[in-house]
Amino acid sequence: MGFGYWGPNLVRNLMSHPDVQVRAICDTDVARLAHAARLYPSVHGTSDITELLCDASLDLVAVSTPVSTHYPIAKLILRAGKHVLVEKPLAQNTLEAADLLSLARVSKRMIFVDHTFVFTPGVRKVQELVSNGELGPLLYYDSTRVNLGLFQHDIDVVWDLAPHDLSILDFLLGGRLPNSVSCFGAAHYSRFADMAYLYMSYGDNFVAHINVNWISPVKIRQVLLCGTRKMIVYDENTVQEKVRVYDRGVEAKRPEDIYNRLIEYREGDMFAPRIGTGEALMAEVDDIVAALRGEKEPTVGAAAGLRIVTVLEAASESMRSNGRPIAIDPPDYR
Amino acid sequence: MGFGYWGPNLVRNLMSHPDVQVRAICDTDVARLAHAARLYPSVHGTSDITELLCDASLDLVAVSTPVSTHYPIAKLILRAGKHVLVEKPLAQNTLEAADLLSLARVSKRMIFVDHTFVFTPGVRKVQELVSNGELGPLLYYDSTRVNLGLFQHDIDVVWDLAPHDLSILDFLLGGRLPNSVSCFGAAHYSRFADMAYLYMSYGDNFVAHINVNWISPVKIRQVLLCGTRKMIVYDENTVQEKVRVYDRGVEAKRPEDIYNRLIEYREGDMFAPRIGTGEALMAEVDDIVAALRGEKEPTVGAAAGLRIVTVLEAASESMRSNGRPIAIDPPDYR
Amino acid sequence: MGFGYWGPNLVRNLMSHPDVQVRAICDTDVARLAHAARLYPSVHGTSDITELLCDASLDLVAVSTPVSTHYPIAKLILRAGKHVLVEKPLAQNTLEAADLLSLARVSKRMIFVDHTFVFTPGVRKVQELVSNGELGPLLYYDSTRVNLGLFQHDIDVVWDLAPHDLSILDFLLGGRLPNSVSCFGAAHYSRFADMAYLYMSYGDNFVAHINVNWISPVKIRQVLLCGTRKMIVYDENTVQEKVRVYDRGVEAKRPEDIYNRLIEYREGDMFAPRIGTGEALMAEVDDIVAALRGEKEPTVGAAAGLRIVTVLEAASESMRSNGRPIAIDPPDYR
Amino acid sequence: MGFGYWGPNLVRNLMSHPDVQVRAICDTDVARLAHAARLYPSVHGTSDITELLCDASLDLVAVSTPVSTHYPIAKLILRAGKHVLVEKPLAQNTLEAADLLSLARVSKRMIFVDHTFVFTPGVRKVQELVSNGELGPLLYYDSTRVNLGLFQHDIDVVWDLAPHDLSILDFLLGGRLPNSVSCFGAAHYSRFADMAYLYMSYGDNFVAHINVNWISPVKIRQVLLCGTRKMIVYDENTVQEKVRVYDRGVEAKRPEDIYNRLIEYREGDMFAPRIGTGEALMAEVDDIVAALRGEKEPTVGAAAGLRIVTVLEAASESMRSNGRPIAIDPPDYR
Repeated sequence: MGFGYWGPNLVRNLMSHPDVQVRAICDTDVARLAHAARLYPSVHGTSDITELLCDASLDLVAVSTPVSTHYPIAKLILRAGKHVLVEKPLAQNTLEAADLLSLARVSKRMIFVDHTFVFTPGVRKVQELVSNGELGPLLYYDSTRVNLGLFQHDIDVVWDLAPHDLSILDFLLGGRLPNSVSCFGAAHYSRFADMAYLYMSYGDNFVAHINVNWISPVKIRQVLLCGTRKMIVYDENTVQEKVRVYDRGVEAKRPEDIYNRLIEYREGDMFAPRIGTGEALMAEVDDIVAALRGEKEPTVGAAAGLRIVTVLEAASESMRSNGRPIAIDPPDYR
Repeated sequence: MGFGYWGPNLVRNLMSHPDVQVRAICDTDVARLAHAARLYPSVHGTSDITELLCDASLDLVAVSTPVSTHYPIAKLILRAGKHVLVEKPLAQNTLEAADLLSLARVSKRMIFVDHTFVFTPGVRKVQELVSNGELGPLLYYDSTRVNLGLFQHDIDVVWDLAPHDLSILDFLLGGRLPNSVSCFGAAHYSRFADMAYLYMSYGDNFVAHINVNWISPVKIRQVLLCGTRKMIVYDENTVQEKVRVYDRGVEAKRPEDIYNRLIEYREGDMFAPRIGTGEALMAEVDDIVAALRGEKEPTVGAAAGLRIVTVLEAASESMRSNGRPIAIDPPDYR
Repeated sequence: MGFGYWGPNLVRNLMSHPDVQVRAICDTDVARLAHAARLYPSVHGTSDITELLCDASLDLVAVSTPVSTHYPIAKLILRAGKHVLVEKPLAQNTLEAADLLSLARVSKRMIFVDHTFVFTPGVRKVQELVSNGELGPLLYYDSTRVNLGLFQHDIDVVWDLAPHDLSILDFLLGGRLPNSVSCFGAAHYSRFADMAYLYMSYGDNFVAHINVNWISPVKIRQVLLCGTRKMIVYDENTVQEKVRVYDRGVEAKRPEDIYNRLIEYREGDMFAPRIGTGEALMAEVDDIVAALRGEKEPTVGAAAGLRIVTVLEAASESMRSNGRPIAIDPPDYR
Repeated sequence: MGFGYWGPNLVRNLMSHPDVQVRAICDTDVARLAHAARLYPSVHGTSDITELLCDASLDLVAVSTPVSTHYPIAKLILRAGKHVLVEKPLAQNTLEAADLLSLARVSKRMIFVDHTFVFTPGVRKVQELVSNGELGPLLYYDSTRVNLGLFQHDIDVVWDLAPHDLSILDFLLGGRLPNSVSCFGAAHYSRFADMAYLYMSYGDNFVAHINVNWISPVKIRQVLLCGTRKMIVYDENTVQEKVRVYDRGVEAKRPEDIYNRLIEYREGDMFAPRIGTGEALMAEVDDIVAALRGEKEPTVGAAAGLRIVTVLEAASESMRSNGRPIAIDPPDYR
């Protein structure tokens, strides 16, 4: 469903996978369908979603349509007894997302949310370094994700760009949600914010900050992730050395020295592990195939999709009330 | 007064200036005084501030001591009828700063605040581009000022690093203050915040954000300053091309197109103007000498110093109340 | 002909061009043919070149096979009355290249040589700056083209990587050949040189140097092109600012000052013109189509192909004789 | 002797050393002497070298004068029974350098040559990695050392900039000389070459290439040093990560595979060891003091100085004969 900006990438990767057969492409735009037909003459094209819903041979439908349509389309697909892969974010609000989650439970179908960043070799390597304890207890996550260009027409910059960081954080923290979210944004060119800052507090020492911006002269994709033992700079925008691990930090000989500020700085070596070069979307398709076969849980399933929508919704509420911290209630997955 | 971390830079630049004579260096630490004596055998060293206060031949005393001592020391100097150059920030709070300002009025002496960044060739060039209208109306200022290391022992990261951006903003905006300030911070290693985010709203379209951090693996000194016509990346950390001007932006053919999101992106040339290589502190000494001679107003005088303390104080209040926006009342300069 | 490393790129761009029809793909490797059939089920696949030669409907055959086979295959194609696009370099030596050139003359068919770099937006912009005189008289061209990896199995690093620079130089200088070529190379892993340095002298002040290397830890694609008025850094490896123009140079007030070394350095602004983002190979296909229609001369035809082989042959001779400069006799195009 | 461009750096570091006393500064230019007097009022200034020669209290004289004067001045100093530190290169030709060496032997005085780069923390780290075998057998050294500006008025770019690389190579290779040197150069603005390329062959697999240039728009100080096991990029121009060690290379399973080109590329992690931040010149002064006390041999003594002049002389001869390789006869140190 949907052969616009991102849909063709989905189709290309699904078609290349040895265990996947792409049976139909659906788009309401005739020009996009014609384009699909030129690229994939062997795949059936249609502008009628009911053709997909009624085709008993389909196991999964991928939805790459505007965010406001995710909920109604995914609902139809789940009700038709098919698994669904939904473009990020899963839905427009937590009500919709929670409803999809329970519908999936009831119909025993799976929801996959297309948070592709979680499948990049860079994020995989960062997760490995976090989970094996190399960084030590985490202190903060600080992301700058800015560029020139509005890629979405029905959502603001927070709902467009922040899902990348929220899904990475969700993956790194094992699904742990922040205690509260604050968000400031400014809208210069339309009623939708084109730049925003999210601040998240996690109750313990850990905090996260996300700087998203559609009107930046340069493209920056830089994350600082610091622990007490080591610190990472993860830059998705570079070709070489996407993940750099610094043996740097702050040290105190004795706990009481902290209070006297008898602090020392440790500046050791830097290490840039080799990062694989596989395409993230192909790893995601692998993950989906394995989950459909019952070999594993989905890496980014309905619960993760709901958690991310929960934070986005709180951020929007905070932005409307001029940055007031909004407490996050853990969503009820039942 | 004070020959610790920054004092030697002040002395070196003051001594190199043809129209300045350095008569005395004062420090309460005997080891620092001995160090000064080795470097400048011809200059009188003392640990007794009253020697400076009573020396009728001194026109100006430079104060490079911990922030908590700025107010009492500057007060003594002004009362002794001397001009004073105070390390940034001017004081610990607005009460102190305002008191110094009125004391200077009464005693007809001048206060200079050592916001050195305002005198860097890079900031000068940026100010030129702003004031000649090349950027168009300003949209935002976004600064990342992070590194590993605590350089001050009696203040937090906001009072240590944010004054650089606040003084640059004050200079670029001609002394205009934000309407409100929000600030989030986290303290991982002492009771002082070691990382913080400031968000400032100016009432119109313009907003500013400052990211300051003492526990970053890498040193970043990057400012994005964007207008409707052009956008600047100012990076104090590079050797070449510190200021890059991008002919990039967002355009709508007709005002109503904005609402329909019929927006186009303009991506034109990039231009990096030649930046002078002079030392900022020497330009600052030039400025002080000219002001003392009555040839011009100080570029960063008591009023600017007070404005910056006003914002810092509001940021601290916001941080204590978990990011609540604090309204800025323009200080009363009388 | 040839669906190995580069062939698929040719096919993809040829197929996307509105005025081109791809009728057949030929490869002697069955696995490659099967791969082509999967990607392009509508295109005829064959391992028999005579099928192509006898197909009267074909106007042009593209040859993307090992260098040693360029000559015999291109000869068959020209004799069959078809135009030919040959992968770079045109042939193994000047005898072969010159023979192809005269055969093309006689049969009134065109030879295109696939020096793709000439069609990149970056090189186009550099050529524009050279030809409009902005750089002033040229002083030198200095290229570093190094990476890890041997991409060709029947030629050395000079014949693999230097054709890129030689075709750019040929394009920038309007087909002018150097007076002499010197070349040093070292072979660490086989009998073929894996690193080499070419030095070319052009009789006047202009010189060129090319550093090519298959065993470098990092990928560098950097060209310095300097004139008396301006200087260019052209870096194919960066995403933004591929072409940077520096207003820098050396100046003498009076000619005799040069001899007294009363020289001044001019360090002005830097300027990075916006570079288009089109794919080079598509621009090359455009060029081929226009030439086949008689609308223009080929940008990189047989004569350019022969000139580049002439320099490569001289470089090989110099390398064998330990760097002795080899004079270049302009090839006889008749 | 000589308080021009580099002399003040020597004086500053010599004065800061606890075991060194600077007694006199000599320069024939009255303005330079006056400048020295302002900076170091306690040090005797003179324009008469005989004052230095006759001062029995002086152990060592440092010579920072034009290259053409190194030989006569150093000779006077050695004959006066004093040790001498000579700016690089040691002399104008091997005759002069060898004569100084034998004079030092006879008079039992030491010659130090100021090849400062050998004392930088970066080169020290590279040497450590070479000598502990981490790189494996060395394949090549490839240096690009270019910028805008002529810093010397009596020598060409080879004698100005190549000594840095030649001294680094001499240090890394333990004094081993190349078998032959080839050099190409071009002179655009005076009779002295302003750009040049040196190629050195060492008889075994190892080769070195040095690209030096005074008319480059950008400053580059980059060395690739590759061994069979690991590869280094050493960039003196960066603040962080001056030395990067890449676990990359070429591998063949069996020796005969090389001939079949069954070669694989190894692309592993990158590692940037922490580099100290000490000033090179201070480490050099330490080295000189230790040698004068008999605690160690000089790191860069007369023999190293002579070897480097030997290569420079051969490079000049090669440049005059259009790049002809000039065989290096190991100098006779007796």
